[in-house]
Amino acid sequence: MATETPPVAIIMGSRSDWPTLKHAADTLDRLGVAWDARVVSAHRTPERLVQFATGAKSAGFKVIIAGAGGAAHLPGMAASMTPLPVLGVPVQSRALQGLDSLLSIVQMPGGVPVATLAIGEAGAKNAGILAAQILALSDSTLAGRLDAFREAQTEAVHETVED
Amino acid sequence: MATETPPVAIIMGSRSDWPTLKHAADTLDRLGVAWDARVVSAHRTPERLVQFATGAKSAGFKVIIAGAGGAAHLPGMAASMTPLPVLGVPVQSRALQGLDSLLSIVQMPGGVPVATLAIGEAGAKNAGILAAQILALSDSTLAGRLDAFREAQTEAVHETVED
Amino acid sequence: MATETPPVAIIMGSRSDWPTLKHAADTLDRLGVAWDARVVSAHRTPERLVQFATGAKSAGFKVIIAGAGGAAHLPGMAASMTPLPVLGVPVQSRALQGLDSLLSIVQMPGGVPVATLAIGEAGAKNAGILAAQILALSDSTLAGRLDAFREAQTEAVHETVED
Amino acid sequence: MATETPPVAIIMGSRSDWPTLKHAADTLDRLGVAWDARVVSAHRTPERLVQFATGAKSAGFKVIIAGAGGAAHLPGMAASMTPLPVLGVPVQSRALQGLDSLLSIVQMPGGVPVATLAIGEAGAKNAGILAAQILALSDSTLAGRLDAFREAQTEAVHETVED
Amino acid sequence: MATETPPVAIIMGSRSDWPTLKHAADTLDRLGVAWDARVVSAHRTPERLVQFATGAKSAGFKVIIAGAGGAAHLPGMAASMTPLPVLGVPVQSRALQGLDSLLSIVQMPGGVPVATLAIGEAGAKNAGILAAQILALSDSTLAGRLDAFREAQTEAVHETVED
Amino acid sequence: MATETPPVAIIMGSRSDWPTLKHAADTLDRLGVAWDARVVSAHRTPERLVQFATGAKSAGFKVIIAGAGGAAHLPGMAASMTPLPVLGVPVQSRALQGLDSLLSIVQMPGGVPVATLAIGEAGAKNAGILAAQILALSDSTLAGRLDAFREAQTEAVHETVED
Amino acid sequence: MATETPPVAIIMGSRSDWPTLKHAADTLDRLGVAWDARVVSAHRTPERLVQFATGAKSAGFKVIIAGAGGAAHLPGMAASMTPLPVLGVPVQSRALQGLDSLLSIVQMPGGVPVATLAIGEAGAKNAGILAAQILALSDSTLAGRLDAFREAQTEAVHETVED
Amino acid sequence: MATETPPVAIIMGSRSDWPTLKHAADTLDRLGVAWDARVVSAHRTPERLVQFATGAKSAGFKVIIAGAGGAAHLPGMAASMTPLPVLGVPVQSRALQGLDSLLSIVQMPGGVPVATLAIGEAGAKNAGILAAQILALSDSTLAGRLDAFREAQTEAVHETVED
Repeated sequence: MATETPPVAIIMGSRSDWPTLKHAADTLDRLGVAWDARVVSAHRTPERLVQFATGAKSAGFKVIIAGAGGAAHLPGMAASMTPLPVLGVPVQSRALQGLDSLLSIVQMPGGVPVATLAIGEAGAKNAGILAAQILALSDSTLAGRLDAFREAQTEAVHETVED
Repeated sequence: MATETPPVAIIMGSRSDWPTLKHAADTLDRLGVAWDARVVSAHRTPERLVQFATGAKSAGFKVIIAGAGGAAHLPGMAASMTPLPVLGVPVQSRALQGLDSLLSIVQMPGGVPVATLAIGEAGAKNAGILAAQILALSDSTLAGRLDAFREAQTEAVHETVED
Repeated sequence: MATETPPVAIIMGSRSDWPTLKHAADTLDRLGVAWDARVVSAHRTPERLVQFATGAKSAGFKVIIAGAGGAAHLPGMAASMTPLPVLGVPVQSRALQGLDSLLSIVQMPGGVPVATLAIGEAGAKNAGILAAQILALSDSTLAGRLDAFREAQTEAVHETVED
Repeated sequence: MATETPPVAIIMGSRSDWPTLKHAADTLDRLGVAWDARVVSAHRTPERLVQFATGAKSAGFKVIIAGAGGAAHLPGMAASMTPLPVLGVPVQSRALQGLDSLLSIVQMPGGVPVATLAIGEAGAKNAGILAAQILALSDSTLAGRLDAFREAQTEAVHETVED
Repeated sequence: MATETPPVAIIMGSRSDWPTLKHAADTLDRLGVAWDARVVSAHRTPERLVQFATGAKSAGFKVIIAGAGGAAHLPGMAASMTPLPVLGVPVQSRALQGLDSLLSIVQMPGGVPVATLAIGEAGAKNAGILAAQILALSDSTLAGRLDAFREAQTEAVHETVED
Repeated sequence: MATETPPVAIIMGSRSDWPTLKHAADTLDRLGVAWDARVVSAHRTPERLVQFATGAKSAGFKVIIAGAGGAAHLPGMAASMTPLPVLGVPVQSRALQGLDSLLSIVQMPGGVPVATLAIGEAGAKNAGILAAQILALSDSTLAGRLDAFREAQTEAVHETVED
Repeated sequence: MATETPPVAIIMGSRSDWPTLKHAADTLDRLGVAWDARVVSAHRTPERLVQFATGAKSAGFKVIIAGAGGAAHLPGMAASMTPLPVLGVPVQSRALQGLDSLLSIVQMPGGVPVATLAIGEAGAKNAGILAAQILALSDSTLAGRLDAFREAQTEAVHETVED
Repeated sequence: MATETPPVAIIMGSRSDWPTLKHAADTLDRLGVAWDARVVSAHRTPERLVQFATGAKSAGFKVIIAGAGGAAHLPGMAASMTPLPVLGVPVQSRALQGLDSLLSIVQMPGGVPVATLAIGEAGAKNAGILAAQILALSDSTLAGRLDAFREAQTEAVHETVED
């Protein structure tokens, strides 16, 4: 971990979620936003979850990206223990292909929101962008990088269907 | 709450889950098994959840029945913090009618089981029976009552389709 | 509309969505966050959508809450035309009960995130809270009100199942 | 692109949709109907979408075939900005296999129709046939080619299950 | 039935589908397009279906709107026996709420398209509009009425959420 | 085709369904029941369907096994045109894995039954057995072969989990 | 029960299934086929199930109609213990509206077929018709009544949408 | 089979379920709990099921783990014939990927519970742990091994996302 707390924490339920969540980290890199990633299992390391989530704000984090699959409780439980915005990424599961992950993350009861993104890699990438959008509200330099990112993205959509 | 800890704790995410979970309590009453019921919201009272779940075994509970709806994290999070068997009851939700509750409870990752019952009242009733079945493994008097309950249930199935 | 642009814009596809989205407005009221609500139909008033979304940031908005049902394109299309964070609320639909609304909002492609909340009223309430969480990152007074809101919410969870 | 506007425009959200949409183009070729294909992303190039859709009729197009996957907003948004018939092709998505694409395209609110076809290649082929059926209403030569196409299709169904 | 064949035929599997399909007829009325409606059950009156569908074009019809629920075979079977465009309306079913109707209509194999609209009343209304859009390609007067209809629809979307 | 009409007709929507339906034929072979298999596409060869189904009984068939995938109309349409029992086999589809096939076949309206079996090969095998069960009601020799088949099946279930 | 065994046995998991299954009985009445109905719960009276199913053929029954809801095991278990054709009727369940009943009945493994009908009343009615179709294979008088029933059904489909 | 009855019986519908159920056995081995595994098909060997289930308690078993796929009736039928706790493991099916298995097992009617675990290998592993949790209620040595297992599991969750 860096000596200064980066604004974005990326947590995931298992190391096997990293190939998905890495797309959040890569996107943050491209947007020049520092991040910290760690494995925090809601089910196998509940104490680590409590310590991380209750201390995340005072540690200096601004936004938490949480990814998990199946009965995906990590994003919602983190959200229950921090006032920071929590962005949830449903990891594609084996049997039900992420429908279980999605419903477990998005269907939170009134009072404890999780900002849920799409299932899998697209959702992880978008969690990175959304974190940057949130941080850019009070960081005009980042807002400029985000604008450039969006313009480049638009320009990269070639109109022709084949080369 | 009784002066002596009853063997079964019934916890639920919201008071609005009680009309469902009451069927577990009624069934335990009928089987002569003492219980304690309380509201423990995984999302709105996470500290209460940690205190309850980590202390449930030393408090003397044997089995935990946990009911919740929507992104139902209570059963799985309780299971992550106690070695006691946790029986999960998916409460029927408004929009998706309990499919979200069911998947959020049953699709636990390897390592932390939740014994999941059917959606709604039937599941709550069955959680009460299952708790009794577990306790009856070392309580032959309860086993007798359970046998009588099952026999009465069989006899109550009238063969004729109309009176 | 207020003379000064409020930080949160609430848009919805149809006036019939207001009974759902009103829960976002009520929650923002309770948290002391000003808002502006209007009907912007992606399908029936696409020009109004373009005007609103492309001008939302320069108009002074910080966060957009967008609710829609069925083939719910409003949140995603708004997100495609503004760098502001867009929070999507799936309104419960008649035939498929919001599953279509949810998938239409959450399954955005990589590059254009929509922070999706739960189907229906709980999701609308949570959109209000999430907007406040985002704004509170650079507004410590609001952060204090949010902490009080969360504490009150925790205290309101009575442990007993019946009065 | 041809000097004269062809009757059918094929648009798609991403170049990766072309292997699916190509079946629409191939079918139109076989039926002797000219077409123009281009990538128009509702989310990443919203301005291009507005320009294309609002100008499609005056440019001389008669029918628009629009394919997209996931939260597939392209067909519905195009339909909101043109009086031309829009035929929607749900592209098979990775996690939810096109169910999200289908619901995002077909569940349009009253007022803005999208003529939705099957998920994937069969749907793309059928979009080509349907476009020809529509154009054939005022083009008896095309109607004749369509009849021949349908007859050949019937004859190609060999009654024996094996050669 | 009128002495001259109207351009649009509305067929449905059962008289109980009329409350849904009536929205197609009402919309056609509003757009000044004549129609003929009749009950043609694919399953209970297959001969009537064959007679109607094979003769629809020579009878002078231009577009067929077909509504059905459950295992909804009417639209697809009509499409197999006519070169006219067939627009399918999934009627909301009792147990599965129209998901069965939708999949039975939209998932046609390559070769025989059905232009599928949304489940229920919105879909029926949109079938009426789509029929008009198709006919307007060679009827500039109707095209004018359609433009007026769309403008009126846009103007009817009041921006304020409450009166 | 045999000079004498076999009791069971196997029809399928496409030659590509034969690898599935072949399991019905193989099972009938094993049970000593003659069959005839042919491709009859409800959508691409509707006339062939009408001819086959309306004439099946007078041709001497007793039971019809019909397999199809996607918007699977073949079993239901055959059932609408013959008093013979029709057994429906949902062929596994590509995008929705047979859920569309299953609902299109099983959700028939009151009045026209299709005896639906499981999706895919197991369903095809079971269609063969069910046809034999039906024929065995008036054929005691076949009933004997069916008993032997069932006994062999029971004996083939080895109790040990590994050799 | 009649002194002579009627050809059709109707069994159901609970007396609460009778309002659904009654439609099978009424249809058999209309077709002049005798029946016997009784409650046999696979789960609460497994012995009664074994006795009934293993003895059904020797008791003189020809066809078994079995209805159940939720985890509906009755049709499949009956089928495992009798060579008679078993027709399964999925009763509409409360939370999942019969989707669970349908899948529990239809997805039988290769070797033990259940002829599954639609969810609810339509399925029960069709089970009655299918039983008659099976019996009519060796009963030409019944075949005549069935033809008349089907003709009356066809004639009852009035072509006009309103009186 | 061991001379002394082990506390846990593992039964499965087919030898092809063993690769899934083996994870239950492996977990029990790791926790020092003896088990016995056998194939008992509810559908192909119903007598073996009756014999096993009705005699399981007197044979000395304490807990039954039952795995099956598709229309998975084994766990529920075993539960109907024994007062012992039955733990159900939905085996991933081919077409519907275990959703049918899950619903067939979990949606039991009130009166006969099955403690259902997740679909596939994770569910099998968790069935092993849950069986141990149940047995540990009256076996403090096993309780100690279970605590060690859980601690080792927690420690094995490395916080870093990459080595």
